[in-house]
Amino acid sequence: MKALVLNEVKKPLVLQEMPSPKASKNQVLVKLMAAALNRRDYWITQGSYPGIQCPVILGSDGAGITEQGTEVIINPGYNWGRQQETQSGDFKILGMPDNGTFAEEIAVPKEQLFARPEHLDWAHAAALPLAGLTAYRALFVQGKLQSSQTVVITGIGGGVACIALQLAVAAGATVIVTSSSQAKIDKAMAMGATAGFLYTTEGYASQVNEQFGPVHLIIDGAGGDGYGELVDTVCPGGTIVSYGITTGPTAKLELRKVYWKQLHLVGSTMGSPDNFAAMLEIVNKHKIEPVIDEVFALSDGNKALEKMNVSSQFGKLVLRVSDK
Amino acid sequence: MKALVLNEVKKPLVLQEMPSPKASKNQVLVKLMAAALNRRDYWITQGSYPGIQCPVILGSDGAGITEQGTEVIINPGYNWGRQQETQSGDFKILGMPDNGTFAEEIAVPKEQLFARPEHLDWAHAAALPLAGLTAYRALFVQGKLQSSQTVVITGIGGGVACIALQLAVAAGATVIVTSSSQAKIDKAMAMGATAGFLYTTEGYASQVNEQFGPVHLIIDGAGGDGYGELVDTVCPGGTIVSYGITTGPTAKLELRKVYWKQLHLVGSTMGSPDNFAAMLEIVNKHKIEPVIDEVFALSDGNKALEKMNVSSQFGKLVLRVSDK
Repeated sequence: MKALVLNEVKKPLVLQEMPSPKASKNQVLVKLMAAALNRRDYWITQGSYPGIQCPVILGSDGAGITEQGTEVIINPGYNWGRQQETQSGDFKILGMPDNGTFAEEIAVPKEQLFARPEHLDWAHAAALPLAGLTAYRALFVQGKLQSSQTVVITGIGGGVACIALQLAVAAGATVIVTSSSQAKIDKAMAMGATAGFLYTTEGYASQVNEQFGPVHLIIDGAGGDGYGELVDTVCPGGTIVSYGITTGPTAKLELRKVYWKQLHLVGSTMGSPDNFAAMLEIVNKHKIEPVIDEVFALSDGNKALEKMNVSSQFGKLVLRVSDK
Repeated sequence: MKALVLNEVKKPLVLQEMPSPKASKNQVLVKLMAAALNRRDYWITQGSYPGIQCPVILGSDGAGITEQGTEVIINPGYNWGRQQETQSGDFKILGMPDNGTFAEEIAVPKEQLFARPEHLDWAHAAALPLAGLTAYRALFVQGKLQSSQTVVITGIGGGVACIALQLAVAAGATVIVTSSSQAKIDKAMAMGATAGFLYTTEGYASQVNEQFGPVHLIIDGAGGDGYGELVDTVCPGGTIVSYGITTGPTAKLELRKVYWKQLHLVGSTMGSPDNFAAMLEIVNKHKIEPVIDEVFALSDGNKALEKMNVSSQFGKLVLRVSDK
């Protein structure tokens, strides 16, 4: 079969012939129709991820057809474990160290397979799993979002941020977005955001609060220097959920604000199988379609990675694996 | 009446004659028997507190007798408001801007008065309110401590840390303490701590985890550079509650650890009237006596402040107001 392989970090992916996987007991062979990129794939190509093993087929997101003819999407979070509060020590994400979805075929443990939402074509189905799962847990499990609340979603345009916007709007919450791009803010408002702010404007926290406060929840995938502004934006007793570090791995935390405002700063990554099922339920009920920025041929995987590097996308970057 | 007055920041307190307060409608006049210091008093004398107004009688903690002869302690958190999640914008702490407890008399709103625990003498009763309230909320409301869990309490010796140790032991939790002083650790173990670690030992987090993990909760009043070690110490899915910044106002937060470990970093300050009542219930039920480091005469208030400055105390610093 053909697959996009990372043979060495900091080198381009190579579309090459690889042995077809065999499904072991409890696994199912899936012929992939589409895959999607996540920032994780980019970090791995740059060597910025713990425990990288090469060669490896990247890719956490995929949708396809089993040998029995069932149309499925794959939950990319393996071995979550028994606790809802946190993943087990055996937890891993599909696509390194195990071979991932940038390939024509993949062998997947049965319990990772979920029915493809009927309203989604292959590209949109492949765009859903990792971002949808991450956004669901960040918003509703770690963030405890209520329909009466106002949530700020930072860095709109990213895959998680876009589906978080859709899930939060579906839940009836008031959604404010931030971006460095007015064009992205405009797109978000067309999708149901109430307002958007350029995070490049210093002191935007006070504007958000004057016009739309109180902000009960912030969903942040950026981290870095902008984190302090989030602490100023969120209301007393409110929550900031962090799921990523696109703009920087550390944040300078002013603890006096944290305790005086009685804040909850919560981490979230991926989600449990229960979270995945709950996310799918909302997506199916509200016929949510993940936003796709661009669909690439599998052979153009490196172009897609480069687009993620410059963060110019609005929505998911998808790889078409099969035209059938 | 005599009172200890801060006439100017960065100057010693002065024991001077002040007009006796008059109880307005809804207030009660209390003849104070004892008062106690908090780090807040020290910060105010140093000018390191927002909105300082001089002259002012300092002091948040007090116990005494009303004109009707009722023996009371004072809840120093005024105007908490209706929400349990956070204090209202009108919230203030007794002892700046309102005159506090380092005085022979004080006029206090009725709803701030609670019955003196029968098992506590005046000094111990005065030692309880602010620290007990802060510790209760940090442990049980913001920290959601369960009896089956392990909690680390940092900087044992501080007033809040000491009563937190007692409340957590009473709740049946396993308690680990940290300090820069082995002598303080030894005292804490005599009070029911299971173990203690010198936070001056780099990498103590791994020792705590090897010997006593998982650590579900950390109660921290220090902040500063040591915060990163706490992020390493707490278990996945665990909680760090911050209530103070004795060693530094900021913390460098490694967000990757926060999200991968699905942590909850929570702020806590003071507490609601409901929290105060719940704290008193535990103190009365378990006959908890706050730890007193030293009792000073009211005229020796500056000596007590200096002891707080060098943090040599183990437990509360109390001022004896009346010998009657």
